[in-house]
Amino acid sequence: MTKENIADWFRSLQDRICLALEDIDREAKFESDIWERPGGGGGHTRVIRNGNVFEKGGVNFSAVWGDTPDTILNALKLEKSDFFATGVSIVIHPNSPKVPIIHMNVRYFEMGNGVWWFGGGIDLTPIYIVRNDARFFHQTLKNTCDKFNPEFYPNFKTWADDYFYIRHRKETRGIGGIFFDHLKASELFTKEQRFEFVKAVGETFVPAYSEIVNRHKHESFTPEEKQWQLLRRGRYVEFNLVYDKGTKFGLDTDGRVESILMSLPLLASWDYNTSVKPDSEEEFTLQNLKKEIDWV
Amino acid sequence: MTKENIADWFRSLQDRICLALEDIDREAKFESDIWERPGGGGGHTRVIRNGNVFEKGGVNFSAVWGDTPDTILNALKLEKSDFFATGVSIVIHPNSPKVPIIHMNVRYFEMGNGVWWFGGGIDLTPIYIVRNDARFFHQTLKNTCDKFNPEFYPNFKTWADDYFYIRHRKETRGIGGIFFDHLKASELFTKEQRFEFVKAVGETFVPAYSEIVNRHKHESFTPEEKQWQLLRRGRYVEFNLVYDKGTKFGLDTDGRVESILMSLPLLASWDYNTSVKPDSEEEFTLQNLKKEIDWV
Repeated sequence: MTKENIADWFRSLQDRICLALEDIDREAKFESDIWERPGGGGGHTRVIRNGNVFEKGGVNFSAVWGDTPDTILNALKLEKSDFFATGVSIVIHPNSPKVPIIHMNVRYFEMGNGVWWFGGGIDLTPIYIVRNDARFFHQTLKNTCDKFNPEFYPNFKTWADDYFYIRHRKETRGIGGIFFDHLKASELFTKEQRFEFVKAVGETFVPAYSEIVNRHKHESFTPEEKQWQLLRRGRYVEFNLVYDKGTKFGLDTDGRVESILMSLPLLASWDYNTSVKPDSEEEFTLQNLKKEIDWV
Repeated sequence: MTKENIADWFRSLQDRICLALEDIDREAKFESDIWERPGGGGGHTRVIRNGNVFEKGGVNFSAVWGDTPDTILNALKLEKSDFFATGVSIVIHPNSPKVPIIHMNVRYFEMGNGVWWFGGGIDLTPIYIVRNDARFFHQTLKNTCDKFNPEFYPNFKTWADDYFYIRHRKETRGIGGIFFDHLKASELFTKEQRFEFVKAVGETFVPAYSEIVNRHKHESFTPEEKQWQLLRRGRYVEFNLVYDKGTKFGLDTDGRVESILMSLPLLASWDYNTSVKPDSEEEFTLQNLKKEIDWV
C-alpha cells in the first residue's frame, strides 16, 4: 500500500460523499476547483451553495508534498525531511437551524524518514440538540469503532470532547463525535489495518449524517430560531479561527485560503451578553454543550 | 503620577468618548456593565447597539492586577512578579457600509519589579476606501504625533501597517493608522511625557472619527454594498480571532469574554472565492488594502 493508493482512496471518498449530499439536497450541485500548491501537490475543492438543504459547504480533497514545515519538525523534534500529506475535509452548513452542522476529516501524513501516521475525526454541531439524534450519531460512530477495537470509541470520543472545545466559552462546539491522530503501526495494528479503520470512518459520514438531515430537513423554523443559529455559527467561527489546528496549520503554511476557510458559514452573528430563556430549547442545548456526556 | 492617576484619566476618557458617540448617533445610548476580575481588579464595559448610526460598538475601560501571566513573563524573560494593567479599548461597527469601522486602544502596564510601559493604537477600517477620508485620518494622527516627535508618525504608521495585517489574505485590515507599544522612559522622554502622548492619542479619537462619520452617515447604500460590508466584516473577524494580540491575551488569561469579543460585528459573512468587478469601488478598496501607502 503506497501513499498514492491512500490518496486515490480519499479521492474516491470525496466523489461518493459529494454525490450523496447532492442526492439529499435535490437542488444544488457541487462546484469544482482544482488547484496546485506552489511547493508541491495540490487539491480538489468542491463547494455546494444555495441549496435546498445546504446553504454552504465544502468537501475538499488534497494531496500535498514538499519540505516539512518547521512548525511540525519543531513540534516533533525531528530533523529536516520532506513530507506527503493527503486527506478529505468536510464542513457543511445547512440553511435550517433544525439541521446540524457537520464536520469530518480523514488524513494521512508521511515523511521521507519513514515516519507516518493516520488521523481523523467527525463531529456534529446541532443548533438545537436533540437527544435521539445525538444517541444515533454516537451509536453509529461507536459501531464503526467497535469493529476494530472496543477501546477506540471511548478513547476517541474523549479526544473529540477535548479537541472540539471552545476554551474561552467553556463550551464544546457541539455534541462531539470522535477524534484521533498519530495512529501508527503497533503490536495490535498493521498499517493496512490502520487504513481500514480510517476508511471505515470515512464511510460512516454519509449514513451518520444523512439520517439526521432527513429527520429534520422538512421542519419549519421561526426567525428567532434562525437568529439562534447565527449566534451558534459565531461560536463555530470562534472555534475554527482560534483553536482548530488544521486551520492554523493551513494558514501558517500558506495553504489555499479559500479551501481552508470554506469551513466558515455564509452568515454568522455576535451579540453582546446574550442569554437564553429558562426551560427553553436553547437552554437545553447550552446545558448539553459539555464534555463527558454519555450519549450512547 | 501613580498608576491610579493613569487609570482615572482612562476612565474619564471613556466617559467623554461615550458622550461624543451618543451625540453623533442621536438615538442609542450606551449600556453599562461593571465587572470584577476574580484575580484582581475589573472593568467597565459600555456597549452601544441598534443606533441610528452605530449597529454595535463597545468602549471598554479596565484596570486589572494580580500575578503576571506566564505568557508575558516568558516572552520578556522576566521573573515572577505582580502586574497592573489599565486601558481603554474601542471597536465601533456602524450600520452603513459608507461609514468605516474604527478601533482604538490606549493602555498602561506595570509590574512590581519597576518595569512599566505605555502602548496604544488607532486604526480605521473603511468598507469603501475614500482617499480624502484616509488623508484626513492620517493627517489628524500625524498632527498629534508631530507635537511630540517628528519620528513618531512615520514609525508608528509603519508599526500599524505591520500589526493590522491579515497575513493569510495578504491584506491590511483597513487603511491603518498608528500603533505603538513598550513606550518606556528614555533620554528624550520622561514618564510624564509618555503619558501626555498617550493622552493626546486618546483625545484624537473623537475629532478623527466624528468628522468621517459625519461626512457619510446620511449617504444611502444598496443591498450589494451591504453585502460587501458583511464580507469585509468577515475579514475583520479573521484578524481579531487569528492575529490580534489583545484578543489572544484576553482569551488566554481568562479575561471577560463578552468584553473582549464585543469587537466582533453583529453580522458577518464568508462566501467562497468571491471576486470584485473591474474598475469598481470594491476593487479600488482591495487595491488599497496594502502596507506602505503614504496617505498624507
